[in-house]
This record gives sequence, C-alpha cells and structure tokens, in this order.
Amino acid sequence: MTEMNKGLEGVIASQTKISSIIDDRLTYVGYDIGDLAEHASFEEVIYLLWYYRLPNKRELAIFQEQLTKEMKLGHKIIASLAVIAHEKVHPMSVMRTMVSMLGVYDKDSEGDSNLSNYSKAMKLVAKMPTLVAAYARMRKDEVPLQPRGDLSLAGNFLYMLTGTEPTPLHVKAMNRALVLHAEHEMNASTFSARVCVATLSDIYSGVTAAIGSLKGALHGGANEQVMVMLAEIGDESNVVAYLDAKLAKKEKIMGFGHRVYENGDPRAQYLRDMCEELTTVTGDTKWYDISRAVEQYVWDKKQLKPNVDFYSATVYHCLGIDQDLFTPIFTVSRIAGWSAHILEQYEDNRLIRPRAEYVGETNNTYIPVEER
Amino acid sequence: MTEMNKGLEGVIASQTKISSIIDDRLTYVGYDIGDLAEHASFEEVIYLLWYYRLPNKRELAIFQEQLTKEMKLGHKIIASLAVIAHEKVHPMSVMRTMVSMLGVYDKDSEGDSNLSNYSKAMKLVAKMPTLVAAYARMRKDEVPLQPRGDLSLAGNFLYMLTGTEPTPLHVKAMNRALVLHAEHEMNASTFSARVCVATLSDIYSGVTAAIGSLKGALHGGANEQVMVMLAEIGDESNVVAYLDAKLAKKEKIMGFGHRVYENGDPRAQYLRDMCEELTTVTGDTKWYDISRAVEQYVWDKKQLKPNVDFYSATVYHCLGIDQDLFTPIFTVSRIAGWSAHILEQYEDNRLIRPRAEYVGETNNTYIPVEER
Repeated sequence: MTEMNKGLEGVIASQTKISSIIDDRLTYVGYDIGDLAEHASFEEVIYLLWYYRLPNKRELAIFQEQLTKEMKLGHKIIASLAVIAHEKVHPMSVMRTMVSMLGVYDKDSEGDSNLSNYSKAMKLVAKMPTLVAAYARMRKDEVPLQPRGDLSLAGNFLYMLTGTEPTPLHVKAMNRALVLHAEHEMNASTFSARVCVATLSDIYSGVTAAIGSLKGALHGGANEQVMVMLAEIGDESNVVAYLDAKLAKKEKIMGFGHRVYENGDPRAQYLRDMCEELTTVTGDTKWYDISRAVEQYVWDKKQLKPNVDFYSATVYHCLGIDQDLFTPIFTVSRIAGWSAHILEQYEDNRLIRPRAEYVGETNNTYIPVEER
Repeated sequence: MTEMNKGLEGVIASQTKISSIIDDRLTYVGYDIGDLAEHASFEEVIYLLWYYRLPNKRELAIFQEQLTKEMKLGHKIIASLAVIAHEKVHPMSVMRTMVSMLGVYDKDSEGDSNLSNYSKAMKLVAKMPTLVAAYARMRKDEVPLQPRGDLSLAGNFLYMLTGTEPTPLHVKAMNRALVLHAEHEMNASTFSARVCVATLSDIYSGVTAAIGSLKGALHGGANEQVMVMLAEIGDESNVVAYLDAKLAKKEKIMGFGHRVYENGDPRAQYLRDMCEELTTVTGDTKWYDISRAVEQYVWDKKQLKPNVDFYSATVYHCLGIDQDLFTPIFTVSRIAGWSAHILEQYEDNRLIRPRAEYVGETNNTYIPVEER
C-alpha cells in the first residue's frame, strides 16, 4: 500500500479524455477554455464532452432539438416540487431531492445499455435548468414556465427564470458562465459521481451524489460566499478597511486561489471581461469596481489571483439572480461534466475502493453491559 | 504525482479509528467481528462506532430511548412516501430520494456543530428502518406502523415490516445481520460519503450519496443476486448442473470472494450458523442445504469462499423478506458505519480531490459550426 494521503492530493484516480489541467491551462477535449468561452455555445460544449468532438451543423441541430424536447418537466415532478418549494432549506437540498426523484419517475432508470445511459444523460442535462428555474419561481408563488423552442439553453434558462425574453448580452453572459463551469477534471463532485457509478449504480445516483458534494462550502458553495462578502463591503471605499479587518481575524477571503492552479485560474479573466461588459452597458459599474478593488487588494497582500467563483458571483448578480441560486446554477452547468465522466466511467469500469489506515484501539473483548 | 490507479486499490485515503481489516480479520474499534456478532446488540454497535467505546448501562438505556423516539416518521415524509411507493422502480431509488427528503424537512439541515451532526446521525440511523418498513407496507397498500417502545431496533424493524411481534430467534437473526453489515472500512459507499462531506456538505448529502453507491450491483446489490441464483437453482439436486452451466458461460457466481480478504470473509460463518439455526427450527432446511452445496461446489472448482452477501440472502429469505428489500436492509445496517465515517471526516477534514491522467486530444482550435 502507499502512504496515507487523506485529500488524495496528486493521486491519479483515473484516465480521462474529457478535460485536462496542465501547467495552469484548462482544456476541454484539447480546446483551450478561452477559445470555448469566446466562441462555443453550451450545447456544443455538452456534445464535445460526451462525444470527444464538436458536432457538425446537422448533429448540433438535432442535439438542440432533443435538448429542448427533454427540458420539459412531467406533471408528477412539478407536483413534487410544489410540495417542497416553500421549505426554508438550502436550494441544493431541494435540487438533490428532485434529481433523485427524476430517477424514481424514469421508467428507464435501470437501463444499462449505452443508448439508455446517453438518453438519461440528455434528460438530466436538459431538465436541470428547468428544475432550477421552476423552483425559483414556485418558491415565490409564480407559475413555472415551459421552455421555448426558439431559445438556446442559456436563453431558455433566463427566460424560464425571469418570465421575460433575455437580451442578447444576458444570453451571452449566461452561456459563457455555463461553458466555463461545465467541466473541471477530477474535482470533488465529479469524483464522487465516478465513485458512485463505479459500483455500477445508475446515472441518477451518480448525479445525486455529485449535487450533494457540490453543495459543500469548499466546493460549489464558494461563489455564494463571494457575493455575501461583496454585499457586506457595499462600496468601493470600504474595500481596504473590510479586508484589513478580515485578514486581522485570519478569515479566508473567498474566491481566490485554487489547489490545481499555481498562477491563477484561467477561467477568471473571461468572467471578469463579461462582468465589465455587463456593468458598462447598464452604466452601473459598482459591483465590478468593488470586485476589481478586492482583486487588487488580495494580489497586493497575498499574491493570490481570483478563481472562477470570484467573478461568477458578480456576473450572476448583474443578471438579477438571487444569491442562493448561484450553486444551483453551477449545477446546471457542471451536470455536463458529471454526465460525461459517468459515461466515461461506465465505458471502462473498475470499482473505486481505497483503504484506510487503522489508528484506533486494538484487542478489545466484549463485556456484558451489566459489567461495564 | 503517483502512478494511475483507477480503482484506488491499496491507496490509503484516510486514517480511521472505526474499523480495521488486517490479515483477513475484521474488527470494529478493536472488537473482533465474531465477538460482536455473538454478543452485541446493533444499538451497542452504533454507539461503539460513533464514540469508539461500548456504552455503559445508563448510556445505553438513554441511547435506546433516543433511537426509539427518533424512529417515528413525520406526516410530511409519510405523505411523500405515499406518492412514490407504488412506482415500479428499484427500492433503493426510493430510499435515496426519501433520505434526501428527510434533509429537506429537517430545520437543522445546515447546522454544523458537533451536537447538530450527532443529532442528525441519530435521526438517520433511527428513521432508516422505519422508512424501509413503511415503504414495504405502503407499496402493498398496507398502513405503515409506528415503532414500539419495548422492542430493540432489530425487533422494531421486523415488527414494522410484518405487523406481528417477531420471535426471539428472528430478532436474534436480524440483529446479527445488522451487526455484521454495520461497517466495513473504506468500502465504496462509505468512501463516497466521505468524498461528499469533505466539501463540508451536510450529513444528508453524504448518506444520500452512500445510498446511491450501495445500490450498485458491484456493492450492495450482490445479495439480491445471490437470492436470484438460489431461486433459479430451486433444489439441491440441481446445484452442480446449474453451476457447471454458469461457469461454462463464464458467468460470475455471486456471493464469493472479496477484494480485501485473501482467505475468506470472516462475516460469512456467523450468518451461515444463523441460517442453519433458522432453518433447523422451521424444519425446512431447503435453502440452507442449497447454499451449503453451492459453497462446496465453488470451493472445489474455484477455491473461493463465501462473502457476507452469500448467507445474508438465505437469512433474509428465511425471515420472510422480499428479495428486492435486501439492499434497503443493508442500508438500515450500514448507515451506522456511514454516519460514523461522516462524523470522523468532519473531525479532521480535508477536501478529497484526486487528479486524472489526460489521455485525450490536444491542441484543438474552435472552428465555427458552418465550417465543420
């Protein structure tokens, strides 16, 4: 056995053809993340992650049509969501439950052919935005909306969330955020999905496990906490005093640094640009200005660069999205990567079963409770 | 980085004080599994796994009282279960959804103090048998039963399942099965629970992930498949012909061998003894006789010994339990180990985030879809 490594840092748990992080460069199937952030639609990225190549025009048209068709939620799911939408609980607990429930209502849950698994991946990727949007509306007693056939996934998501047709700039911003969060190699939620399905469990179990993992503050929960911080700062003039106080209390500044990047997260700049564009158009650059000032401060004091969570907070805020939906939106995007990894795991499976080093008591003997 | 190890075989992912498997010997907190199987109640084992020692008389009495109190299901959970209990789906999909739902209805879901986490672990361990029993009855249009204050967890489970007070022998058999399945070091479901909560996600997320993992055919699903095989054999006289045919088709014989034991699973013999006792009392030794013959055949041909799944199938069958509930019953037991590992993970946490080795395409450049 190898030495104990409780975070599995640097341990290679799998081979993959999906994405790579090498020398601070992130690629999906060999495409630089910046290239995709600038040009690709989220639909193209899903296809790329599943089939290891970009679709041609006809393939993409069919794929988009299938996605739109599968975006609709059945009435049983809407009814289940209605029962729990008003519970005062973390939205990710609701999403975890609803995705598990999708598995209960899918007659093909236990199908294990390739076709069955790709078709379930399609349902999950398509229904996730509808679930998040329906939840966001139903908890405010608004009627959930059905997807429109003439909008992209990003556009449909914003439409179903707000009830109005989004501007091209808002669609561009949402699409870019979805592309940038879609996949990130063997991160904790993706790894938990692979551990789960490596028992030959079904894809709903794998995605449910991943949602539960993404919910954690050390993973998907980070961008919510960035927004909490920005809101607490409230004005650019407060940045230095606020962060000085935070560092004095030895508190962590959320949205900076990342275990797998030494010189900064390459995704951050594309969201920063998007954030600048969004706030310039509205003329209200407040949140962008605060964010830039925080970035400068953290660089001066700690030599840390922002990660993907930092500017995604401001982007979502500019799109008018409630802060507690940031992690559910992360789910809408990352489900592309999770499903790709689950399909790849099935392709060449082996049970993932490490060991533990025992450091507890030894040689105990049972004594009847009366004598203890 | 280390070499690629896709099953993480032999990789040490954590330290633990909960259980050890060394030289084919399984101990819980230093107590030999045989010692506990012969003498301990499942309640004592839960306490042992959480607190690293057996309770004294007063501690045990209070613990049992708390467990019985928490076994009751709220009316919202019963109502949710009623909606899905008749769906034709794997019972583990229902259990995965209902445990996630418990998290939605727990006002303390996001509490992260030690007290909050132990209290949620208590709720989960206590409610799991009630959930399985309620589901088993409700899908047959029978009214779910509330736990009784005068029965042990094993006794209550059988009572709530069947509606009649179980015999002492049946309680002994169920208790022993629960003790033997309660914990097994860093198995796949326990590992997925630890990966999940290492993001600082909540205990409901961790247990939901674990249930999804246990559902897989390579993990908890195995004892169901043992029963399928025994039923197909049907009579002791068919054993050799049936297994000859199976081996000729290169099919796996379920319930034999285990990755972490070289000379046999120490849990098997205690369930074999139980199985013999159960079938001797009823006078109908058919399933025990078939099982023994299968064991002998596999030893002669493959030098493989039965694992915990093999005789648990016959034991559950003798208790009159439906075959598709075998994995849910595994959950009733293993939730003790999962919760212990989740509590231990919180105690000294580090994000579990391995790496992947990239073997895909490189240096791709985005081309507009019209040109593809």
